Parts: sequence; C-alpha cells; structure tokens
Amino acid sequence: MSKWVYDFSEGDQSQKKLLGGKGANLAEMTNLGLPVPPGFTITTEACNEYRKQGQEFPDGLLDEVAEHRKSLEEEMGRPIGDSSDPLLVSVRSGAPFSMPGMMDTVLNVGLNDESVEGLASQTDSDRFAWDSYRRLIQMYGKTVMGVDGDLFEEAIESAKEAKGVDNDVDLDTDDLKALIDDFKGIVDKETGRGFPQDPTEQLHLSIEAVFSSWDNRRAQDYRRRNKISDDLGTAVNVQSMVFGNRGDDSGTGVAFTRDPSTGDNNPYGDYLPNAQGEDVVAGIRNTTPLADMGEVQADAHKELLEHMSKLEKHYKDMCDIEFTVEAGKLWLLQTRVGKRTSAAEWVMAYDMVEEGLIDDDTAVRERLTAGRLDELFKPVIKAELKDSKEPVATGLNASPGAAVGKVVFTADDASEWAERGEPVILVRRETTPDDYHGMVAAQGILTSAGGTNSHAAVVARGEGIPAVCGADAIRIDRKAKKFTVAGETVEEGDFIAVDGTDGTVYIEELETEPSALEAAINGDEEGKKSTLWKAYERFMSLADDTRRLRVRANADTHDQCANARARGAEGVGLTRTEHMFLGEERVRAVRKMIFADTEEEEQEAYDALLPLQRDDFAGIFEAMDGLPVTIRLLDPPLHEFLPNQVDLSVEVALAEAGAGDEKLSDEDLDIKKAELAKVNELHEANPMLGLRGVRLGIVKPGLYAMQVRAIVEAAVEAKKGGGDPKPEIMIPLTATAEEMRQMREELEPVAKEVLEDAGVEVHVEFGTMIELPRAALVAGDIAKHSDFFSFGTNDLAQTAFGFSRDDIGKFMGMYESRKLVPANPFVTIEREGVGRLMQIGTDEGRAANDKLHVGICGEHGGDPESVVICDELGLDYVSCSPFRVPVARLAAAQAVMGASESSSA
Amino acid sequence: MSKWVYDFSEGDQSQKKLLGGKGANLAEMTNLGLPVPPGFTITTEACNEYRKQGQEFPDGLLDEVAEHRKSLEEEMGRPIGDSSDPLLVSVRSGAPFSMPGMMDTVLNVGLNDESVEGLASQTDSDRFAWDSYRRLIQMYGKTVMGVDGDLFEEAIESAKEAKGVDNDVDLDTDDLKALIDDFKGIVDKETGRGFPQDPTEQLHLSIEAVFSSWDNRRAQDYRRRNKISDDLGTAVNVQSMVFGNRGDDSGTGVAFTRDPSTGDNNPYGDYLPNAQGEDVVAGIRNTTPLADMGEVQADAHKELLEHMSKLEKHYKDMCDIEFTVEAGKLWLLQTRVGKRTSAAEWVMAYDMVEEGLIDDDTAVRERLTAGRLDELFKPVIKAELKDSKEPVATGLNASPGAAVGKVVFTADDASEWAERGEPVILVRRETTPDDYHGMVAAQGILTSAGGTNSHAAVVARGEGIPAVCGADAIRIDRKAKKFTVAGETVEEGDFIAVDGTDGTVYIEELETEPSALEAAINGDEEGKKSTLWKAYERFMSLADDTRRLRVRANADTHDQCANARARGAEGVGLTRTEHMFLGEERVRAVRKMIFADTEEEEQEAYDALLPLQRDDFAGIFEAMDGLPVTIRLLDPPLHEFLPNQVDLSVEVALAEAGAGDEKLSDEDLDIKKAELAKVNELHEANPMLGLRGVRLGIVKPGLYAMQVRAIVEAAVEAKKGGGDPKPEIMIPLTATAEEMRQMREELEPVAKEVLEDAGVEVHVEFGTMIELPRAALVAGDIAKHSDFFSFGTNDLAQTAFGFSRDDIGKFMGMYESRKLVPANPFVTIEREGVGRLMQIGTDEGRAANDKLHVGICGEHGGDPESVVICDELGLDYVSCSPFRVPVARLAAAQAVMGASESSSA
Repeated sequence: MSKWVYDFSEGDQSQKKLLGGKGANLAEMTNLGLPVPPGFTITTEACNEYRKQGQEFPDGLLDEVAEHRKSLEEEMGRPIGDSSDPLLVSVRSGAPFSMPGMMDTVLNVGLNDESVEGLASQTDSDRFAWDSYRRLIQMYGKTVMGVDGDLFEEAIESAKEAKGVDNDVDLDTDDLKALIDDFKGIVDKETGRGFPQDPTEQLHLSIEAVFSSWDNRRAQDYRRRNKISDDLGTAVNVQSMVFGNRGDDSGTGVAFTRDPSTGDNNPYGDYLPNAQGEDVVAGIRNTTPLADMGEVQADAHKELLEHMSKLEKHYKDMCDIEFTVEAGKLWLLQTRVGKRTSAAEWVMAYDMVEEGLIDDDTAVRERLTAGRLDELFKPVIKAELKDSKEPVATGLNASPGAAVGKVVFTADDASEWAERGEPVILVRRETTPDDYHGMVAAQGILTSAGGTNSHAAVVARGEGIPAVCGADAIRIDRKAKKFTVAGETVEEGDFIAVDGTDGTVYIEELETEPSALEAAINGDEEGKKSTLWKAYERFMSLADDTRRLRVRANADTHDQCANARARGAEGVGLTRTEHMFLGEERVRAVRKMIFADTEEEEQEAYDALLPLQRDDFAGIFEAMDGLPVTIRLLDPPLHEFLPNQVDLSVEVALAEAGAGDEKLSDEDLDIKKAELAKVNELHEANPMLGLRGVRLGIVKPGLYAMQVRAIVEAAVEAKKGGGDPKPEIMIPLTATAEEMRQMREELEPVAKEVLEDAGVEVHVEFGTMIELPRAALVAGDIAKHSDFFSFGTNDLAQTAFGFSRDDIGKFMGMYESRKLVPANPFVTIEREGVGRLMQIGTDEGRAANDKLHVGICGEHGGDPESVVICDELGLDYVSCSPFRVPVARLAAAQAVMGASESSSA
Repeated sequence: MSKWVYDFSEGDQSQKKLLGGKGANLAEMTNLGLPVPPGFTITTEACNEYRKQGQEFPDGLLDEVAEHRKSLEEEMGRPIGDSSDPLLVSVRSGAPFSMPGMMDTVLNVGLNDESVEGLASQTDSDRFAWDSYRRLIQMYGKTVMGVDGDLFEEAIESAKEAKGVDNDVDLDTDDLKALIDDFKGIVDKETGRGFPQDPTEQLHLSIEAVFSSWDNRRAQDYRRRNKISDDLGTAVNVQSMVFGNRGDDSGTGVAFTRDPSTGDNNPYGDYLPNAQGEDVVAGIRNTTPLADMGEVQADAHKELLEHMSKLEKHYKDMCDIEFTVEAGKLWLLQTRVGKRTSAAEWVMAYDMVEEGLIDDDTAVRERLTAGRLDELFKPVIKAELKDSKEPVATGLNASPGAAVGKVVFTADDASEWAERGEPVILVRRETTPDDYHGMVAAQGILTSAGGTNSHAAVVARGEGIPAVCGADAIRIDRKAKKFTVAGETVEEGDFIAVDGTDGTVYIEELETEPSALEAAINGDEEGKKSTLWKAYERFMSLADDTRRLRVRANADTHDQCANARARGAEGVGLTRTEHMFLGEERVRAVRKMIFADTEEEEQEAYDALLPLQRDDFAGIFEAMDGLPVTIRLLDPPLHEFLPNQVDLSVEVALAEAGAGDEKLSDEDLDIKKAELAKVNELHEANPMLGLRGVRLGIVKPGLYAMQVRAIVEAAVEAKKGGGDPKPEIMIPLTATAEEMRQMREELEPVAKEVLEDAGVEVHVEFGTMIELPRAALVAGDIAKHSDFFSFGTNDLAQTAFGFSRDDIGKFMGMYESRKLVPANPFVTIEREGVGRLMQIGTDEGRAANDKLHVGICGEHGGDPESVVICDELGLDYVSCSPFRVPVARLAAAQAVMGASESSSA
C-alpha cells in the first residue's frame, strides 16, 4: 500500500514530483534544522488516485491524515479547534511545477464559533480573531462549498455602507461579528447546509477542494498553455499557522542575506514587532531595520542571523527570508533565492567568486541576467541627491534609468513641448497605443495605474525610456492638468524626476549623471575603482572567451560606431542609409530625384547626394577600422520623404477654396498641387509590401549605383589613409534569386570601376537581407549570388505572421494576455514559424555556398532569448543597438553554457 | 572520326540533340518524301568541338561541308556564286531546344558583284536581286564581321531622306546600288577589309558566326532563365533558297489542313502568285483562297493537297504549312502543328476521335487547352451581324468575349459614366496601373499599342473583360476625345463593339448573344446540336472520370451557386461574407456596430444583421443542396465600411472653414467629425497586415457568433425543409493554433445551441484559411483544432513575397519582363516558395489530423498550371470562380494524365 502523507521532516528538495514544489522546499528547510512551522504534505499520487476513483479519497488516506494531524497537534501543543488555544492550519496546493494562483487555498482552518474565542484571548485581539474567522467562512464558503464569492463581497460593501466607512479595517469587532452572521446566512441559503463547525470536516473538505482545483478550468488552461501534463496532480500542504501579533514578544519581518539593492555583503531587512506579515508589506507602520532587531529580540535576532548564514551557504546565493517571532520563538515561513537589482547581481556574483562560494562559470551562467545588463548603463540621479532627497512616491520600476523634465498630461502636449526643445515627463493614469507619439517624445513616463506588463511599461522598455508605473499614491486630475501626491500639488510644466531603476518619483529638478559603468567605459578613473566595474571586466572577459556568436552593432553614424566599439562591438551589422537622406540639403536632393522628369535631372540629384553619403561612410569606416561594416542600400518607400497625404490634401483643398491659414500665391499653390499629385501617385495601400527595398533599386537603378559608388569611394579614401575598411554591401527585401543576381551584376562593376580607377584593393562583399518568407525558402538559390545573409527578423516576423508592426497596437495587448501568440514576435524571435524560416534559410544558404556568412540585424539581436535561438540556429553573429552590445555578448556566452531559462529571461 | 555533316535525307525527327530541332524536322519532312528545298545540317557536336578547340573548326569539317555543298549544287543544278544562275543558301542556327531569335542567321549567302546580275536576270527583277544583295551585306556585315548595325540603318535613312521618301520599298534599283556602295564603304572603314566576294568565304564565316552566337550574351541569358544546359551547342542548317517571285508560274502561300477558325475538316489557306512569303504576311496584295489556287496552279495545287493529307496523317493533327511554287515546282518550306481558336480545338479533337485519327485520351490530354476553355462561354456578337458587318480594324485578341459600349478616353470618365449606368468601352493608346479603376468599370477595352502581355491585356484577362490590344490602325487624339480609323472619326460617346476573341473592332452598336456553349448549358436546344457541345459533353465527362481533384466554386449568392453547379461545381470552396455587409440597410447596421459605445449597442447591430445574413445563407444552401459549402467569416478591416480618410478629411476641413460645396448644419458637421475621428482611429498603415480576419473575431467576439448563428439557423431551415445542408465554417487569417482553438471554443457552442434548440442534426465543420506563412509552418498544431484547411493563395503569395497586390502595379511589369519573378505569383502558384509552404501545410496538417481535408480557394484555383501544382501537392479540391469551373475540371484531368506543358499553358 502507498504512503499518502509525508511529514515535512520526511521529504527533501529532490521530491518535487511526489510532494510538489512547495512541499519539497518546506521539507528541505525542515531537514536543514531550521525552525519551520510543522506540518505535512499529502502526495500528488493521492490526488491522482482521488481523481481516478471518481472524487473518492483513496483507502488509508484519512487514517494517515489523522495520524499526522495528531503528531502535529502534539508537537505544537495545541489541538485544532481547541476552544481555549486552537491550532490553526493552512491547506494549500503545491504542484510539481509552479502554477501561481491557479489552484485553491484555505487558511485559518480550525476556527469555529468556540475556537474563535480562544484565538481572541490567546492573541489579545478580538478583532484579529473575528476577522480571521470571517475570512475562513468567506474562503471556505467560496472554495469548498461553491458559493458565489460576489455575495460575500456584497455583504462587506453593505456593512461598510451602513457604517459609512470606506475601508475593511474600519469595521470593528462587533461589525465583524454581524458580518459573520450574514456570511453564515449566505452559506445556509446558497448551499442548504450550514458552515461546518467541525474542524475535521473543515480539514477534509478543504483537502478535497484543493484536489479538485487541479481540474478547474483556469488550471487546465494554464497547463495547456505552459505545456504541463494533466497527469501530474497537485500535492496538498497542511501547515500550522503562527502569528507575530500575539504581543510585544512577537513580531514579523523580512530579511536578505546581502543587501539586495547594492549587493554589499551585509544582512539587510526589516522587523516589525507585534505584527503580521501583511503589515510589513502594506508599510502601514514604521519598521525596525534588521540591524536594530537585536535591541528588542536579542535571541531571535541572533538565531535568525545564524540561519541566514546557513541558508546562504546551503543555496550558495543570497536568500530572501520571511520570518515570524511568536512569543519569542523564531519561525522561518519561507525562503527563496532573493531578487536583487541589476547592480547587486554583478557585485554579489563577484564577491561570491572571490569568497570561493561559487566559481566564475557559475557566476556567468546563472547569476547574471543578460536582459538587465543595459540598466547599468542608464543615467542615474546624482549620488549625493539620491542620498539626500526623499521620493514622494514609489511605483514599479518599469523601465530603468533616471529622467528629469516638465510634467505634461497628454501625448499631444508631450510631442509638442518636446518639439520645441523642452524635456518632458508624460504623466498618465495608463497609456494606450494612441499615446505612442507622446511617449517616445518624452524623457520619462510616470503612470498611476498598470503593472510591469502594462502598455506604458512595455513601450517604455522597448524604447529605452525610463518609466515608473503604477505609482498609485499619485492622483491625477487630467482635465485640470495637475496631480497631487503626499499632500503636494504638481501643475503642468513643473519639474519632476523619475527613477525607473528603483521606481521612485521626486518633485524636484534633480540632476542626473552617467552611471558608474557608463563613466568607467568612457574612461572615468573613479568609476574603474568600483566593484561593479571589476565584476563587469572579469565576467565579460569570460563571456567573450566562451561565446561562439560574434556581436555587431546597428549603427548609422561615426559616433554611434565609436560608442558601439567601446561596448565591445566586433563590427557593424546594419547601417541604415535612409537616415542619411534626411536633413534639409539632402531632402531637397531626394525630392529632386523623386520629381525628376528626365534621367539627367535624376542623375543631378544623385550627384548632389554622392559626396554627402561618401562623407558619412568615411566616418563609419574610420570608427570601425579593421572591422566589417554592413551597409544596407536605401530601403523605405519614397513617399516617406514627402509630406503626409491627408495633411497635404487638406492644405491644397483649403488653399484652392481660399480658406487656408495663409494665403498661398498661385505659384506656390501650383507647386503644392504638383507635390500632391506625386504624393497621390506614390501612395500605397500597404507600403510595407510595396515599392521599397530592392524594388526601388530595380526601378531606380541610378540610386543604388550612387550609394555603392559613395561606399567604395569612402573605402578607397580610408585605405589610402592607411586604414583597413571592410565594406559589406547589403541589398534589402530580396524575394527572388534573380533580384540578387541582377542587382549584383549591376552594382559589382561600379565597385570594381572605383577601385580600378583608384588603383587600390579593398575586399567588397555583396549580400542580402533575408526578411521575406520566400527569401528564406529559396535561400539556396539566393546564396549562389550572395557573400552573406543577414536576417531582418522584424520584417520576417511581419510577413510570417501578417502583423504590421505599426498597426498591431489595436490587438497585440489582447493577443499577449490571451496567449494567442507565444510572445510578442517583435520582441523575441518566434521559434516555430520565424525560427524555422531562419533555420531553412541558414542551412540551405550554406549548403549552396559554403563561404556564406550569416547574421541577424533585426532588433531581436539585443534580446537574450533571441540570442539563444540565434546560437542554436548556428548563425555567425548577431547585431543590435550599441547599448545592447554587452547584453548580446553575455547572452551569447550563456547560450553556449546552457544557462537556465530563468536567468536569461 | 565523327561525322560532322548530315544531308537532310540522312536524319530524322528523333535526332534533335545532334541535328537541332529545325534540322531534325527538315530531315523528317525530307524522309516523308515531301519536296523540301535541299540542304544539310552541321551537327551540334561540331559546334561543341569548335568551341572546345578555341574557335577552330574540327578536323574534317570543311571537307565534309565541301562535299555536301557539291551534292547540293548538283541536285539544284546551280552552283553557289554562279554568275548567271547562282544558288543562294541560308545559314541558320538550330539548337536542340527552341531559342527563338537568340542566335544568328545569314540569308542570301552566295551573292556577290557578279552573281547579283545572274540573279537579276533569272528572277527578271533587278530590284529584287540588288535588294537581296543589300540585305546580305547588311546581315553579314553585322553578324559575321561585327559592324555596328546602326551604321547600316543610318545609311538607309540618309538614302531615303536624300530621295525624299518614307519607305524602303520606294528606293529603286539605282538607289539600292548606291546604297550597296555605301554599305561596302562602311564595312571597309569599320573592319579594315572588304566585304568578301568569295562565296566559300561567305559560307564558312557564316557557319562560324552561327557557332559563336551560341555563346553570345543574349543566348546565355536565355538559357539560364530557361534552364537549358550550356553544353548542348547549336547545329547549323545550310539550305538552298527558293523564290516564289520568279514570274507568273511562281507563287507562295500558307495552308492549314483544317479550318483553324471553326475547326471544320476543310483545307484552308491563301495563295499569292508571283510573290515572296513576306508579301503574304504583310497583306499588301489580295490573296487567292486556297480552294481557287487550282485555277492558276493546277498541278502544284493537287500536289499540295496530297502533301497536306499526308502531313496530317503523319502528325495526327492539323498542320500549318508554308509553301512556295518556283517556276511551277512546289516546295514545302516549313510545317508545324497549326494554331487554332479555342472552339476549333474542341471541334477538331472531336472529329479526329470520330475519324479514328486519335483516341479520347489523347484528345483530352494533349489537344484541349484548359486555360482557353472559358473563352467558349463568353458572349459573342450575334452570328448574323458578325457575318454581315465588316470590322474597321483588327488588333490582338487580348482577352476573349465581345463587348459593346460608348467610347471614353480616360479611366475617370469610364468610371463616372459606368457609375451612372452607361456601358463604356475604354479606348487608350496603352493603359497604366492608374487606369485600373476605369478598366474594371468598362465593358471592354481597346488599345492602339501594346502586345498580348501589355498592361491592358494582362489586366483585362485577369478581370475577364473583353479586350482588343495593339489595333494600330486606330489614331487616338486624347485631348480632342476622338479617334480616327479607316477614314472615319469616332467621338466620345459614340457606340463601338470590340470582339476580343478574334481581335476585331466595329464602329456600330452591334448586338451580342450568349455563346453556343453558354446557350447549351442554359438549356438551349439549338446549342445542344452543335459539334462544340457534343465535344464538350464527351471530353468533360472523360475529364470528370479521370481527375482526382474535386472542383468547387467561389460563390457568394444563390445565383452564383446555381450558375457554378450548372458548370459542374461540386460544392462551394469560398463564400465571402463581406459582400453581405453591403447595401444601404446593412451598411447602416455595420456602422452602428463600429460606432457602438456599449456592448448593448453592438448587440443591436448584430441583431439587425442576423436575419439578413441567415436569408443569404439559406439561398446558398438551397442552390448547393447536398454539397459542401465553405463560408468564410468576416475578413476585411472595418474601415473598409467607412468613407475614405483623405476625402472625409478634406470635406470636414472645408466645412469647418465654411468653404464646402454645400453648407453643412452644425449637427451634420458634428456627425462628420465623429465619423472622421473613427476613421482616423481605425486607420492603418498597412491594413493588409492589420486588424482583420480572425483578429476581428477576437476583438469583436459577438460578430463571429452572430455569423455562425445565421449560418446554422439557415442550415436548420434547409434541413427542416427536407434539404441536406453541409456547412463548413472557415476562420480567416489564422497565424497561431491558439487563435483557432479559442475561436472554435467560442463558436462551436453557438452552433450546438442552435441545433439543440431546433432538435435537428446537421454536421457543421470548423476549419481555417491557411494564408500566412506562419500558419503553414505550424499547420500541425493548427490542424489539431481544424476539420479542414483552405489555402488562401493570394494572401499567401502577398506575405511570402512581401508583395501587396494593390501596389505591385508600379513594378510588376518590370519584374515580369526582366524575369525577376518566375511568373506573376498572383496568376500562377509560385512553386518554390508559396508551393513549399503549401506542401508543408498539407503534409504536416494531415500528419496531425488524418481526417483533415485540404483545398485551395485563392483565385489560382482556376489557373490550369496552378491546378497541376495542387494535384501534385495532393490537395482534395480546388475552388475557383463559377466560370472557371470547367477550366479547373479539365486541368485537373490533364494533371492526372501528365499533359504536356504546352497544351495546358
């Protein structure tokens, strides 16, 4: 016969399948000799047997539960349901894989009309006891007895209304007693039987409820989405409850074995006497720093520090501990590897290596989060100000970095103020896709609602804009254009500062400075003395030795290239030449090209652009001397260089009707009309799928020839000046091998001619973006005419999914929340579809041309999960924005090391 | 030692690799005992040897040539270069695969300053002889000696200018003699040596020139594009030239063994006495019908009819013969299987089967062109009018069918006139993509320039609009809005008729009628007596027995379904429900849905639409009783139901400025402004990749639920009325398996509820379009939640290539002409990319769900080449427009039979 129930002291961490994750961890702590509130775990096998037998407990289970309950009561010295000093227990689910919030929990089991009085006298708090009882009836009624939870909520609302108060805490003991009567009435009416006074019945039915919750709809959905088998079942943990609010010799707290903010090797935490865990979290009362806890709880404090040291050595990492002191006795309720700031991550890893706790490999593989590395380069509020100033509010650290600017309340204002050079912070309750233009114009974003995956947070992180979200202390009056916080009122135009790294908000114009790492990279000697810099140097050097993937940067100017190189870029994977067509002089030439009636006029436009482009490329070759530079020929549709169709149509219509803002001369009107005619001619229903990329090169052959000439002339200059330029010329948006063959046939002679005329040898490569599904599917043919491929993963995701990146705002939120997509495919490379195209493109391209080198230049190149996929696909390099280069270097190393998903996520 | 040279009598049709296509055919005719002008073929092996030895003739070749030349001169009784009666020869290339116009030819070899006089006296025409000599120098100078051909053309122009004439034929013998002196001067100056007077040198260097032309750039490109090996080499045919203009006992003509227009089994052709082949083609003089040739050339005519009969029996098909009579002697210059009209194709095949010349299988496999079958259903000009009226012009039969309407000269006029109900014929020199809206509004199209692949022709065929292109007798004065032809002037608004089946144009309002086949399908007894109908019945019945693919129709209404069923459709593969959202009442409800502020308002809109949709579906189930009907839920983006953004913006701006055409009340202006705000909100940068298809279904769940309810309620009605409805509900634009799973989870209960409420059983299937690359790549996952797949090949081509179908007009012409795409992927399924996605989707979908049925509902379903691909991919059915159903049935049979590409193209 099976053993259905394990005491915490009988299991260990390895038994997650049998005891669930929570049960195994409680067992592990118990075995370490730590003071965990005793209890026992009913196995997943028992759950599965229960389900198999049509919702019947398996033979022997109730006997084993009774036996373990008896031991537990003896150990705790108080029986469940005792009228003078009752033991309360929690009944919680615990599956082999974490399924947070999906299954049921019942707390305070053991309370009834009698034991509630005992609890009241033991805890010296009538209110606490009756509130606990109220919670039990509510939770049990809903979870175990299937009563509609809204009925209880409505009763609470009625009670508060009757009393004229807003908050639950304003209900006193008598109110709660009346409420309990109401609750019991609800249970009677809805179920036809009363709330059970028998603690054993409470316990058994709670266990059944947890078993059954494995098969609720929510849990089933979760498992399907997370690919967890339905056959695993859940364990049930029955654990004695302890209370930190039983008097002055009780208390509760949270402790970290090292400082989670700085990483310093000092225990850190808070203690709150005579309080429950939720009081610490709610921040209602002032806490005592852990260092001062000894003054009120000398023994418990000493014991806690010993346990902390033990736990850190056991887990070989910083631990986060929840503890309670009940009548002088220390209990550890939970421990886990503690969360920390990005800086602390590096400092702790460095110190732990130095201490011999872990080795270098472990540090790089498991302890450093590639995706957070860029936080360390973001500007910070000046150290002395950060120390001296008090934040007025704290929200979620949604997007790292500090920003200072004037408050605005609408996206339009943000965009207008920013256009006239004012730094702004956009303050909203929440943002919507329509706010995008204002968000990207702002220095920083502050919202009063919304979590770390709210629209504001996602956009801010994506665009690298500092943001604090869900700062709910802030009350925004959008119409009056002001907000209030901590008794102060902030008007539109007032300066505030937001620190997206720790989620703090200041109503002052605080000065910012580069981060220590950023300063060090730029040669600052002080910065180089920091532990952070030492950690960065040590671990990045190991990462570079380890990784297989090369890392390049997407950079369009000399300065961006220099910046990227300082961050370890090994070349440029993408120079977008369209940026070189902007600026007054250039746009004039570009428009001349677009409006040209004859080939001569068109050529004149090219002649004007050539020297400007050549200078741009010369700067890039200088900054990237000796390293490969991939330059993409002009990609966007030509109408992007012309005015907006709607605006111009309205302007012309008004001018023709004599109703415009300014009176246009007939001549000017004719020019506008000609411009509109061209805009209409070039207008496209779907420009993303229109006349752009190589199609432009084919329709306007002089354009690409001019660009190639400018690139090669710049390379010749560099070579003559003693440099070593390595140009790689990239044709965008190829769909067919013939496009590549014919383009190369046209352009390669231009390059040869320039080199021959100059009498200089430079190796010039020609390759293409693979950014259309068909290109990937015929990569073998295209590779015959290409020296290299670069996957344009943004466009590839657009066409593979049929998602226009500009338009998905209207539904992507719903898609992500309903898991209709595995993840946002513009953030992380989608493996099944897009990744398969990349696999086909890479494998078949190389099979046809063994010299082909293959990289990626979409923005995914700086996303750690995507870097892992690129490594798996066997690409030669990834390319990303200069600031993400260190991220990619580390992620590439972790890919080789097989870092666990959680650390690279 | 190899044999390098074969007399025509030594080879046969099977030796194409050695003798080239032309050489092998000349040999075949010679062996049939037909009077072919004698000659010999130099083998492809000789060419390859020449190329291998660095442009040196292989040993023995010149000896063999000399030997065969001698035999030839003996046979013809005149030596090459003879001063009194010279034999002239042609030197032509002839590769194993046809490479039309890619390689070189030299005619009139053997003429020099002396023999030209002999030719003049023999032919009694000084002008002919000197013009022949002029042509030799020009062709030889350019081809063999490498002189720039423009120099000769310029000399001809100068001569004409000096004489003040426009045409070459106005140059007389003296002019030509002077021109020959000029030509010789050009050759001297450009090459440093004179035009060779030695006929042997002419012959040998011409052979070398043909050998070398195998490797010219043009030929290399052609081979690469057509995947012909460079190693094959070309043969060279040296053939004696004969002349039909040596007097009244000479002549030339073209003959067909049966009437190529009607298919009737009567020899048909034209004879022109004392003329050369080019005179027949140019139509300069009136020809004698073949039947009357016996009156002037009794013996030759009799002999010709005997040869024709022999050739038809030999080739087992109608032959097209070019012949010349020289001094009473008949020569056959060329024969090939003759081109014929679509009707003639069917009639001839039927007759030949009846005659026992071919069997049924051969007829269906090789003699019927699926792609032309729809021509037989197009309206025709009433038979009595067609017989009695004379066309004023003839152009290319660019798109079949007859059309009658008023002449307009601009696309805007076409569209405006059509909108007010006037039938129009759009007349242009050529059309551009900007004319599209006018083209589709017109009954027919007439252009004065452009070939069968011009923009006008391609669009007209694609849209099924009758068109005559390149009718160059027409002179258009676009500004004055009129055209002149055959001395008559046609003004805007005048009626004309165009017959796109034979390319004729009439300036009268001729009445049209249904074609014989269309009449027969609609039950007309007279039509059913025609041979054409008998042929159609016989061969289509065989096709239906043979094909593996089922054929469905894309049909949105009861009438379209009935029409499709009469043409053999076995169900509906695509009902587009968006058409059901049009019409005043419906658009009002749709707009209500779009503008709804509350769920109630939205539901009201659905309630209004439900009964209307149900009636639509009821009609479809009735017409398709017992057959499957696939209904696609709403697909297009919502803004398609709202006004155009530019127009509305201008209207509102003008109204606000008080400058609009009509004064709007404040209230109306507010409505317009609200409408504009919604239009702007719904505006998308790339609607093709935006909020449409299943995304709409997810964002507006009530919409699809309403449609499903309407479908199933209609099915219940049908079932209760004794019918057998087979609804297949199709979700568009799926990209992920979760979309399909969640949609099905929402919609299937709606269907079940309707059926349960009605107490009726109807089998309702749920499936999806596979029209995005990712959907094909994850088809295995999607198939788990789908009863069927239907490939949306238009959208799949759009996203695989990144080509917006609405926008490619600006470059697709260039893409097709430069072979940058294998073919227009919106016409024929592109095999390598799109086809591979279909293969993956089909194979992996079926592997995951063995009950899955798979079809195609893009417009490719009616394209014969695409049908072959669908058969190869193993699909279950194709679906196409009702009129293309017979095309698809025949093509599907030919796919199984392995029809040759030429017959199904």
